[in-house]
Amino acid sequence: MSERDPEVDRAAAEAVNAALYSALERGDIDAMAKLWVDGPDAPSALCIHPGWRPLHGRSEVLRAWAVIMANAGYVQVFLTDVETTVLGDAAVVTCVEDLLTDFSTADSSAFLGTRFAATNILRRTPVGWRLWVHHVSPVLSEQDLAGGHDGLGAGEGES
Amino acid sequence: MSERDPEVDRAAAEAVNAALYSALERGDIDAMAKLWVDGPDAPSALCIHPGWRPLHGRSEVLRAWAVIMANAGYVQVFLTDVETTVLGDAAVVTCVEDLLTDFSTADSSAFLGTRFAATNILRRTPVGWRLWVHHVSPVLSEQDLAGGHDGLGAGEGES
Repeated sequence: MSERDPEVDRAAAEAVNAALYSALERGDIDAMAKLWVDGPDAPSALCIHPGWRPLHGRSEVLRAWAVIMANAGYVQVFLTDVETTVLGDAAVVTCVEDLLTDFSTADSSAFLGTRFAATNILRRTPVGWRLWVHHVSPVLSEQDLAGGHDGLGAGEGES
Repeated sequence: MSERDPEVDRAAAEAVNAALYSALERGDIDAMAKLWVDGPDAPSALCIHPGWRPLHGRSEVLRAWAVIMANAGYVQVFLTDVETTVLGDAAVVTCVEDLLTDFSTADSSAFLGTRFAATNILRRTPVGWRLWVHHVSPVLSEQDLAGGHDGLGAGEGES
């Protein structure tokens, strides 16, 4: 079986993509670390969390995930609109993430549902497909967008 | 000269990236249309504007750019932190966009500066490098982030 079989590549890339969200749900930083590019590719790792500046390099990316996991509490992720394209040694997975987060306190129970759009780019490495770029942005509701300037809403000074 | 010369590829990809912002500044939808994948790659075009759901396919992507340009007025874009990686037939350009937008009215002069993080993915095509994925998210200030829940800020239910 060739490693360049498109269906094998696609399935492998989607498995890494799913494992990212599974690691987040479990708060498992070791599992997360195994998914990201390492060795010579480590400096090229890039992560843009919603509202954040870009984080560059494996160390900075994993440090941020550790902080996020330490603060996140209960998180459940529902993925929809998963689209995967493999182009040689790169794979692009885009998806919509619906996150359910627990903000309950001792006194009250509260869950927050939030929608995000994600672009995940993977690289083919000698040890399999690895996460290279993770870029996530909040998807605002129509109601949120109506609050913008002159219909410029949340767009790029543009929407 | 080989088309696979890494420096030639990198310069070509960065030129397409710069042309995207130039087309936005000029409100030139024809120039924008020329930059995006077409033909058999057209359905795979993907654009995520800040706060928006993902837009799929060349037609939907260009329709949104036309609307954005019609509403944008004066826009000036300053790019920093441009990082380009070419991997075979894919190129990934990440950058920070500082946008200056004019909200002046007849009565008053007002400019708004906004920072965004962008991931632009290009494909090598028979007619050169073309935009394939454009994903942009707002970069919030420390002050904005401090307003989040429990330090969860604007992160992915996470930050």
